[in-house]
This record gives sequence, C-alpha cells and structure tokens, in this order.
Amino acid sequence: MDTRRLERKLRMGMVGGGADAFIGAVHRMAAQLDGGVEFVAGALSATPDKARASGRALLLAPDRNYGTWEEMLEREAARPAGDRIDFVSIVTPNDSHFAPAAAFAGAGFHVVCDKPMTFDLEEARRLVSIVGASGIVFALTHNYTGYPLVKEARHRVSSGELGEVVKIVVEYPQGWLLAPLERAGQKQAAWRTDPRRAGASCCIGDIGSHCENLAHYITGLEINEVCADLRTVVPGRPLDDDGNLLVRYASGAAGVLFASQISAGEENNLGIRVYGTRGALEWRHEEPNDLWLRWPEAPATLLRRGNAYLSEAARRATRLPAGHPEAFIEAFANVYRNALDTVRARILGVEPDPLALDFPTALDGARGMAFIETAVASARSERKWHPLKDYR
Amino acid sequence: MDTRRLERKLRMGMVGGGADAFIGAVHRMAAQLDGGVEFVAGALSATPDKARASGRALLLAPDRNYGTWEEMLEREAARPAGDRIDFVSIVTPNDSHFAPAAAFAGAGFHVVCDKPMTFDLEEARRLVSIVGASGIVFALTHNYTGYPLVKEARHRVSSGELGEVVKIVVEYPQGWLLAPLERAGQKQAAWRTDPRRAGASCCIGDIGSHCENLAHYITGLEINEVCADLRTVVPGRPLDDDGNLLVRYASGAAGVLFASQISAGEENNLGIRVYGTRGALEWRHEEPNDLWLRWPEAPATLLRRGNAYLSEAARRATRLPAGHPEAFIEAFANVYRNALDTVRARILGVEPDPLALDFPTALDGARGMAFIETAVASARSERKWHPLKDYR
Amino acid sequence: MDTRRLERKLRMGMVGGGADAFIGAVHRMAAQLDGGVEFVAGALSATPDKARASGRALLLAPDRNYGTWEEMLEREAARPAGDRIDFVSIVTPNDSHFAPAAAFAGAGFHVVCDKPMTFDLEEARRLVSIVGASGIVFALTHNYTGYPLVKEARHRVSSGELGEVVKIVVEYPQGWLLAPLERAGQKQAAWRTDPRRAGASCCIGDIGSHCENLAHYITGLEINEVCADLRTVVPGRPLDDDGNLLVRYASGAAGVLFASQISAGEENNLGIRVYGTRGALEWRHEEPNDLWLRWPEAPATLLRRGNAYLSEAARRATRLPAGHPEAFIEAFANVYRNALDTVRARILGVEPDPLALDFPTALDGARGMAFIETAVASARSERKWHPLKDYR
Amino acid sequence: MDTRRLERKLRMGMVGGGADAFIGAVHRMAAQLDGGVEFVAGALSATPDKARASGRALLLAPDRNYGTWEEMLEREAARPAGDRIDFVSIVTPNDSHFAPAAAFAGAGFHVVCDKPMTFDLEEARRLVSIVGASGIVFALTHNYTGYPLVKEARHRVSSGELGEVVKIVVEYPQGWLLAPLERAGQKQAAWRTDPRRAGASCCIGDIGSHCENLAHYITGLEINEVCADLRTVVPGRPLDDDGNLLVRYASGAAGVLFASQISAGEENNLGIRVYGTRGALEWRHEEPNDLWLRWPEAPATLLRRGNAYLSEAARRATRLPAGHPEAFIEAFANVYRNALDTVRARILGVEPDPLALDFPTALDGARGMAFIETAVASARSERKWHPLKDYR
Repeated sequence: MDTRRLERKLRMGMVGGGADAFIGAVHRMAAQLDGGVEFVAGALSATPDKARASGRALLLAPDRNYGTWEEMLEREAARPAGDRIDFVSIVTPNDSHFAPAAAFAGAGFHVVCDKPMTFDLEEARRLVSIVGASGIVFALTHNYTGYPLVKEARHRVSSGELGEVVKIVVEYPQGWLLAPLERAGQKQAAWRTDPRRAGASCCIGDIGSHCENLAHYITGLEINEVCADLRTVVPGRPLDDDGNLLVRYASGAAGVLFASQISAGEENNLGIRVYGTRGALEWRHEEPNDLWLRWPEAPATLLRRGNAYLSEAARRATRLPAGHPEAFIEAFANVYRNALDTVRARILGVEPDPLALDFPTALDGARGMAFIETAVASARSERKWHPLKDYR
Repeated sequence: MDTRRLERKLRMGMVGGGADAFIGAVHRMAAQLDGGVEFVAGALSATPDKARASGRALLLAPDRNYGTWEEMLEREAARPAGDRIDFVSIVTPNDSHFAPAAAFAGAGFHVVCDKPMTFDLEEARRLVSIVGASGIVFALTHNYTGYPLVKEARHRVSSGELGEVVKIVVEYPQGWLLAPLERAGQKQAAWRTDPRRAGASCCIGDIGSHCENLAHYITGLEINEVCADLRTVVPGRPLDDDGNLLVRYASGAAGVLFASQISAGEENNLGIRVYGTRGALEWRHEEPNDLWLRWPEAPATLLRRGNAYLSEAARRATRLPAGHPEAFIEAFANVYRNALDTVRARILGVEPDPLALDFPTALDGARGMAFIETAVASARSERKWHPLKDYR
Repeated sequence: MDTRRLERKLRMGMVGGGADAFIGAVHRMAAQLDGGVEFVAGALSATPDKARASGRALLLAPDRNYGTWEEMLEREAARPAGDRIDFVSIVTPNDSHFAPAAAFAGAGFHVVCDKPMTFDLEEARRLVSIVGASGIVFALTHNYTGYPLVKEARHRVSSGELGEVVKIVVEYPQGWLLAPLERAGQKQAAWRTDPRRAGASCCIGDIGSHCENLAHYITGLEINEVCADLRTVVPGRPLDDDGNLLVRYASGAAGVLFASQISAGEENNLGIRVYGTRGALEWRHEEPNDLWLRWPEAPATLLRRGNAYLSEAARRATRLPAGHPEAFIEAFANVYRNALDTVRARILGVEPDPLALDFPTALDGARGMAFIETAVASARSERKWHPLKDYR
Repeated sequence: MDTRRLERKLRMGMVGGGADAFIGAVHRMAAQLDGGVEFVAGALSATPDKARASGRALLLAPDRNYGTWEEMLEREAARPAGDRIDFVSIVTPNDSHFAPAAAFAGAGFHVVCDKPMTFDLEEARRLVSIVGASGIVFALTHNYTGYPLVKEARHRVSSGELGEVVKIVVEYPQGWLLAPLERAGQKQAAWRTDPRRAGASCCIGDIGSHCENLAHYITGLEINEVCADLRTVVPGRPLDDDGNLLVRYASGAAGVLFASQISAGEENNLGIRVYGTRGALEWRHEEPNDLWLRWPEAPATLLRRGNAYLSEAARRATRLPAGHPEAFIEAFANVYRNALDTVRARILGVEPDPLALDFPTALDGARGMAFIETAVASARSERKWHPLKDYR
C-alpha cells in the first residue's frame, strides 16, 4: 500500500457481519491487514439489537454503531466529507446485497460486496447499470482471485506460454452439508439452503460460482453453454447440494465443472486444471502456495509463492518471503488491496496503478449470476444443454 | 500361487505382442511373475515374418513360434493334452480380439484378453455367449482392478463402511496424443486413432473404459444413463481424443467421468473418488500404494499397501511388505494370479478359492463395450443423455 | 479475543521494524489482526531520520513517531496512564534486544520480543531476572508455536497418546544464503552474518533456535547434551551457515537436529517428527494445516486445522473453518493473541484464561540462548558432545 | 536384455530363500522378470529337509533340489558346462554369505549376493580379494541403486549440474521393530537382532548400510569420518535398533545419516537429499517414480520415470511408459539386468555395454562393511568421531 500519498487511513463501514457470521470477520481482517483501513461504522445485523450488540463487541463508537444500513447510509452521508466512511462492505446473505449496494453506490460511497453478487440475474444487471452510472469503485470479493499463484496462473495463460486453452477442469468439493445442519439451526447452513435468502441455488450459487469465476479469471474464456446435473442429496432440502456440469466455452474449449456440499470429508477443496496446446497448469486451494506447470516433453515445474521468478502481479500480491506460507486471509486482503488502492487513486484524483485494477467487478458478478441461472435452467429442463443467459 | 497342488507350471501362448508392442511384454512379465507359468508358444504379430522374428528374440522354441494364430491354434490343439498350451493371451489391437478369442475358447483353451474386449458391442455380446458355452476361464485384463488398494476400496464400499454411494468422480487424463503421433508412424498411436482397428472411439475406448470398469469394480454400481461430450482436439484425427461425461447410476448416484489423451503433461493419471453417506475414498494410480478414506467428523486415514489391517483380498494381492512399493506390473500380475488359480482349479477338478474368482470377465467386457457405444451415441446426437445400451 | 471486558484496544509501540525490515511488518499485521490493537507509537530504526520516515509512511502521529527507543520510553512513560502504550514490540537485530527490553520492562511496559532473545546467554539470564522482578508480561515470538496444529501436536504428546517419546528429528533447511547476499548489501543477510550484531552464530542462532524451541514446545523435553558440526559453506562468511547436530534429551530420548541456510532451493522447510513408543507425529511448516499421526498397527491419520475433533488449544488458535487455509501471519498472531489476552487480564486485574498463558516466555528465550552457545561450543571443540549450558 | 546374442536363458541357482524368507522370492522375481533367466537349482535353507521342501514347492527338478549349498556346488560343477548353473544368488543371513560366495566364486560361478556383504569387514576384504582373483562377475544387491530415478540422480550429480556437493541428508526410518518381534519368533526379526547371525549391528547393518551405499552411488563421495549415536530402544535387544550419525566426506561435504527400526508408523521411508552449490535433488523410496530438482533462483522441477528427457542410464532401467508406475521388484530386477548382461558378455567373450557395468560390486560391499564397523566403533567409544576404517 502506498499510504504516503493519501496520508490517512480509509474509513470502512460494514453491512452485516455481526456475531455468528463467518465472512464478516474475514472482511474486517482482510481490509485492515495492510494498516491502511480503519473500521469505524457498521450495521452488523438485520436485527437492530443484534447489530448494536455486535458493534459494541467490536469496539465501534456508539454513534456509528447503527441499527440498520439505511440509518448508516443516512447518517454517514450527513457527516462532513472528511469524516464519513469511504467505503462500505456488504456481507449479508444473497437476498440482501442489492438494496444496500445500490443505495450506497447511488450515494457515492464505494462498495465492496460479497458473492454471489445478488439474489438473481435481474438484480445483477440492474446493479451493473447503477454502479456504472454512479462512477464509484465496486469490488466483488471473489477472493480466490486474490491468491498470488492464481494471479500467476492468469499471467501464464495470457502470456501464451500454455498455448491455446483446450480444456478446463474446475471443481469445488465440500462435505459440510452432508448433515442437515439447517435443521439444527446452524446459521450458515440455514440461509444458504433457503430459496428465499440464497436464490435459485445453494451449491452452484455458493461455490459453483467460484468455479466459474476462477476459470474465467485465469483463462479469460467465456462460457457458451452448459449441461447441468444438479441434485439434492440430503432429503428435504429445497435447493441443490451437488452439481456436475459439462461446459463449452466460446473459444471452442470444453471442460468439466463440479461442486458439491455433500462430498464426505472434503473441506474446501477448490481446484483448477487448465490444459493448453503447449502446456498446462494446476492450482489447488488447499495448498495455495504451489502452482504446477506441466509440459508435453519436459519435467513439470512447481512455482512457489514469494519467488523473484514470478510475474509482477503475483509478487505484488505477496507479503512474506518464499517459504513462509500465506493463505486465505492474505488472498482476501489482496482483493481489498487492489480495490482500495483504486479508491485511493479516485480520492486523490489520479490514475490508479494498472495492476490495482485487478479485482472482480460488478460485471463479473453479473456473469456469475448468469452462470447460476443457466445451470439451474439446464438442470430443470431435463439436464439439457443451455446457452449462457445474457448478462450484459 | 498354490503350485503344490498342480505341481507343474501352466503353459502360456500369446497372440500379438511382438516387437514394438507395449502391452505384450507386460502380459509376459505379469503372467510369469509368480513362477507358475512358462511362455512356450506365440503368434506374435499379424505379419508372419515379424511374428517369427519376435518369437526368436523371445527364445520361443522354433516349432512353437507360429506365423499366425490360426496356425498356433491348429498345432497346439494337435499336441498331446499334457503338452499343449493351457491358455492364450490375446494382446492385439481391438479389431483382432474377437476372432482368436472365440476360436481358442471354442477349442477349449482358456483365454486372457486385453481390453476393450472387442471391436464393438455386437462382438462383445457374441463373445459372452461363446465363452459361456465353452466353459473355459476367460479373463479380461482390466489391470487396475489388480491393485491391492483398489481391492481394498471395493471391500470398504461393499462392507457398508462408507454408507450408500452418492457420488463418483473418476478420471483418466493423459497427454501423449497432444502431438499427432499417428502421423509420425508411432505404432501405439496409429492403431488407437484408426476407426478400422480401434472401433468407434479412441479416448473413451482406450481409457474411458478403464474409468467405467474401475467405478463398477469398486462400487458395484451400474450406469443408467450418460451425457457425453466427446471431442477431437488434434485436427485431422478421425476419433475422439478427449471426453467429458456426466453419469447417472441405477442406484440414483451420479457423477463425473472424464478421460483425455490431450491433457498436456499428464502421464497416466487415473483416479477415482467415491463419496458415500458415511465416508469417502480416493485412489490415484500414480501413487497406487495409498488409499485415502475420509470422514465427515473424523480425521482422514491413509491406508497403505502391505499392512495387516487391510482386507484379505488386498493382502492376497501383495508380494512385498509395507513400504516396499508395488506398482503396475504387480497389479497386472494379480489379474493373472487370480485367473490362473481359477484355471488350475479347473484343471485339478476342484473348486477355486472364492477370492481367486476376483478378476474381470467377459460380462465386464460387454458392459464396457456398451459404455463405449453409449457414450459415442450420446456425443453424436447433440450430446444428449442416453440410457446405457443393453449388454447382456 | 474477549474485548467485551477491556472495552478498548491495546496500544502498541514498536522498536525497529522500519523500511526494508521484514519481521516488523509481520508483527504489526499479527498484533492487529484480531482488531484488538492499535499501533500508535514507534522508534522504527536505529537511525533517527530513517525511524521518522518509516513512521510517517506508516501513518504514526507525529508526536509519537520517535527517533530513538530511549525517547519513546521517556515520552510514553510521561503520558497519562490511560493514554500511553500498553506494550512494546522489539524487532531489532539480536544485539539490540536486551537494552530496550530491559528498559521497557523495568518501566512497567509489557514486552513482545523477537527471537533469539538476546545477543548471548549472559544477557538472556539477566533478562529473565529483570522480567521476573518487573512483573510484566514478556512474550518471545517463537511464532511456529502459534500454529494450531503445532498446539495439537503438543496436546497429543502431553496426553500420552504417543507413549514415551524416544526420538525427535527436527530440521530447518533454507537456501537463501547460498549466495553471499551480505556482500550485495542485502540488509537481512548483512546483520545475520555479522558476529557483532547476530552473536555467536548465524544459522543455529537464527533458525536452529526455532528447531530447539519447537521440539521443546511439542514434547516438553529438555536437551541434555549435543554434538554439533557447524560449518561455513560460503567462503569468507564469519559465522556458520549450516549446522548438523546430534541431540540427547534428559529423558533418554535422542535425535537429530539440523538447520541450513545453504541448501539450494529450500525455502523455509521447518519440519519435525516425534516418535513415541505408541505412535508418532509429523508436522511441516510449508503445509501447516496438516498434522500426521502414525501408528504401529493402524493407518496413519491426517489431522486438519479447523476441525471439531482437535483439542481446545488448537481450536482456540483458529480463525477460519477447515479447508480455508491459515498460515504464517495467523500463527504469528496467535502468539500475540495469547500474550495480549494475558496483558488484558493483567490490566483488568483478573486471572487470565489458562489457555492464554500458552506463549513463549523469557525462560524459553534463555533456554534457546543456552542451546545456541552449547552448539557453538561443541563445534569449536572438535565437534565433541557438550552438556547444555545452565540457563536458569 | 539383448537375448538375441546369447540365444538361451541363463541358469540360476539359489542359496537360502526358502519358505518364510522374504528376500529370496524377490530375487527370483527380479532375476526372471525380463525373461532371460530360468531358476533351475537351489539349496534353499540351512536345514536340508526344509531346503528340499521349499524346492519342491518352487517346482525345482528333484535332482537339482539340494540339501546344502556344498552339495549344490559339487554337483553343479560336475554337470557339463552347457548344463550347469551360470550364477548363484546368495540370500542367507549375513553370517552365511561369505562361505558360499567364496566357494562358488572360487569354482568359477558368477555370484549375486545380498547385502550387507559379509558378517564383518575382515570377511569383506577377503571376499574382495577372492572375487578379484577369480575373474567372476560379482553383484551385491543394493537394490535401491536399481531405481531409474536414482540413476538419474547420479547422472545429475556427475554431470555437474548441481555444482559441488556440499551437504547430504540421507535417512531410512522404519518402525517394524518397535515391537520385540524376535521374541515372538518372527524369523526376519530373529536373525537381524542376533549378533551371531547379523554381525556387529542390526539397524545400521541392515538399513544404515543402504543409506551409505545410496549416498555414495549418487554422489561418488567417500566418507572421511563419522560420529555415531547408536541406541537400543527396545529393552533386552542385544543390537542397535536406532542410529543417528553425523558424517564428513573426504571432499569436505558434510551431512546427516540416520536410520531407525523403532520409528512408529514408518514403513520403509528411505530418502536422500543432496545439496550442491548450484542445485539440489531429492528422492524418496516410497514415491520412487519422482525425482525433485531444486534451484536457487528457479522453480523446482519434478522428473518422472519413463520420460524421454531422462538420461540413458535412467531410460535403460525402465520397462514401462511414463505414468505406469514401476517399483521395488523392477528396481531389484535392474541390478540383475545389468549384472547378468555383464555375465552374458563374459560368456560370449565380448565387452559388456558400459552401462551394464552399473551394479554394486564387492568393493561397494567392503566399503559398506567398513561403514558399519566404523559406526559401531564410534558409538562404543563415547560417540566420538572416527575415521572410516580401511576397506581396500
């Protein structure tokens, strides 16, 4: 972070993310990791009392510990320009992204939003439009794009080193929903399996969307059509908890994309293999400091985070020397780092470093929603192939 | 091998497998590994001169070094019962399996045949019938079923330890056909990519069939329907070199099956993950002495070949103590070990050890041919779902 | 962190850690990760101008951006009790730990100090005494003890599950000093290879000390004697850059301890294997979310961070669910978390949670210095066995 | 194997290796794997009745199923030259190697002998002399040298690619003797822990000797001195079951060598890391198809068996394409392959292929015995450093 130029910390507000939330705490750690942000305001729950109790526990000043996001928006906007929050992070369930995102954007606050971006594709397209009109910086926390070796993977593809991409295998097996946790009152499970809060899909929406995003981020390829076999393995669950997809990309490449929440013993085993005409790469989230490159006629090479032989994008996303592993929080922080460096440039009225523009945007979010809805549509119409829905 | 009872070595003949062949040498090593077989006769090529040159190099006696399999069959059948070959191994390209297999079986010789079993499903169904009528022992060398930890995997599923199987991911990426080797005269590539010799499929026929067989061997599940996206990535190649499939099993389980010959840098990376309602397993061919078991609420366990805690089927398939790795040839030899112990029991007129009956049969071969033809049919009809063709 | 009780953030000062420093930034990220600390004061370099430039870049308030640690001590002590720093983190080279640590401790400030604790054993023993007399909380950042699965390893040994420990293999190979970086002006290399700043040893002091600490932390065993073969592989370097040691522990256990800075291609490959009479464990820093347990008659088990089956000490040291990897910064933050929870209890006048007392102390630092000096003494006297120097 | 030139199989005799033996069966499989050997004679136990029972089970002809090796020697020597055995494999416990090896060598039979070569160094030196005088081919089955990627490792060092070797870490942990199996009548444990049969050492003799041999084979370095800490962890056992050594090589390189039979849960975890001034390598026996190369400034490369980029020595030692794993038996067979190709050249009166001379010799065996006796001497004299005993 180049704080020498802005010479102050950015002020962060948060919507959602109170007690029992998982991802809110991650956003706070990630945003503040580099010392350039102070968390000053929040509406941390949809229930005002819970929101304020969480804010007290997190040491928010009483006058900025809000009961609702509408209140936060109104009162922060009323503060002097030099004192109000610079950006808001939205970490609520999917059905509660659009309204605050649209409102804060409309009021000129920069927005960081968790994924999937909205409840449905329609909302997503509207949000793209609102964000575009507002001129704010909008970042979607597809956090896996923040890993240094995912950035390296993207670099190796775009440099042409692997030739033309011909096949992509991307997968995200988890096992945590093999038990019906939603019936035991587990909050994370409850909203993800509830169609009124999660939207049209549980498994594909929550983690299949990461697969789509990761494949797109690394390769730049657009999906042309998908054939989706979505299932609900745990009886009584109203949304999918397992999904297997065949994918055709616009370039002619093809591949497999599967995600699961009922794969016993799997933790968070996101992985991608990209095969080109001249070489291939493999990255796995559970060993994120490694990137494999494989070649038809030469030994495989193992790239490791933190080394001078990596691309600038990968080196910029690293805080520690090689061999001192970095992981999830640091990758998440890299999404914030780039987005907030762009915010800082906006505040200073200068051009951002081109490398700082490397973070997921509202358009990425709309593409993700199109992917989710297309997969659901395929699955519901006898698992036939469906063209990707229009998201622009 | 219990040679104490037969008190002689079995006599082996071979069809195909001469110079430049890869799998013929494997069959000879595998058959003879345990000291219970002598390789005494062969028709080692479709070209009589080449056949005899190969036989000389392999030290066959001149009078049993035949120019054609028809000659071998006629002259071996004419030898005294105590001197003729006991079994024949057929290791030719796919289009040349049926005729010798049917002829030797019809003449009462036991048969070991390489996979896929025949040129097409029609031949396969006929061969099942011929083998059944002949009463001989017929073994199909789906060699991956010979690995001790594949047998253990099967045991863990059949014991119910993993609960009901709900998902299977099985894959077989290779990269060797990313280059158009068939145009460079590489013999292995030439016949596999030639529809007149390989049949309806290259990739799915050669290695996708191993995926189907492995999944069936371990889980016992029958495929109900498949949706197959088969492609030819290398321009000008008349058969598929990459295939991605969605699978539904008769039990309601589902999964992904993919195989590839154009995945740069992949060697022979067959792997399977079986997810059940109570646990899961993973086995990968390139580290065949490991079998992972994973559990929803407990640490993963790593089973290793050669240990006393394994099932009898796995221990019986092992020649070395734990930690001295075994690999491809030993697994291949296990298919022979069981098949030939069954042959010995037949010769002695006794019941075989039930564990010796654990080897792939003609019916497995027919199921495999049905899988291949179903996949091709799906791919050719707009990649729609197709029910598995009838193979019984 | 239980901030509900203190209801304010702790105020942190720092000695050392300015521009070009590696570990200072780690301390700042680690201390502030959980949102309970604000970094408010610093004397960030031994050169006042550099100190102040670094402080400005890090957004310190001008009046707390000090030129020297003596100035910081004097002026912070002069602030009102409710406004001065609560603790100081000392992150200078080894020769500059003792003086500020002793002075801040003597003035009643809590101290976090990087390792090795002091320049020599004599200083270490004095510091133990000063800290003891002062009543402050003193934490030494042997950060590897902060990893959740290192805590689990300790738990598994102390629970008796592995039986009596009979052998320990602990190693720390690096390769970064294979090149004479100190002659190229690399700051990290320059002071570590300089006997006036690093002390009697480079390799054993810098990283061999982590081996000793890790083995002691996990097993509780005290070293009885060592036989050390220390070498300087890069010509002209005045201190050791490679060390191989045999170790006998007071319990009768034995083992190997080796460290290296000239092992080409190694990054930060700290690893430990502890063998007991009933089982064994292995942990490797480069895959820190895994802990292997191995058994004489049963399959190995792989424990993974974040799971409910782990001990309370391991679960308390985790911020993310299983499968979202944590790494170096989070482990470092765990040393701070426990030390600062103890500081908070001290401020509040209550007993700390017993689990919060799990952080390295001055006595651990003195033991480490005794280990370093014993190893050097052995190496200098014909590599003979030497009893561990007295450190209490 | 170039059988076209000899045009017959070699005839093999065996001393030891009957029922309950482990290594005898390995020798038979390894010798015959390539189809160029027939096992025709044996004296398979020190007890004549057991010897003959084993011979019957293994289908030896009654007239060549001998009760003692002396009888085998006498009667085979009496057979016509074109009918007697070509070589004998000696697979008895250590105390019974010298006598038959010397006698068969003296009578002009080629000899393959298991390791360690003899009961003590004195016998070893005598055997070197006898073998030299006899002119026979003598091969010692240090089988790990037969792995293709061990040969590649050797090639990479000798080519200078890694620079000058500065450090070697070689280790061989096992756990099978953690239980007092010798008291339970387990035959393998009984003789290895018996000083009258195994010699001066159990652990260092049985497996530490593999470490010494492997390090020497790969690097060519000679040990100058060792400091050995040998222990007996299991009470009542008369020989060492764990050993930790520091090593200095004549070149100035140094390192660690440790072996253990009481490391719980370890199977056969031989591994070596060789660090040079320009790069490093690592090979581990339990994943023998991999060889890691590591570099100071470039990504690590993973060499895999069976690829065209490997050296001729590695490619010659391979029977299968890349990705079809090979393992222990195939490596063992490579020692036989080279030794027997040398025997064939001797029989034919031609120069052997220089690559065929790559197998361990009697001098390697004597070096190994010197290593064992030096380690024991060091351990017995207060664990001081000892120069390597003279073995030439």
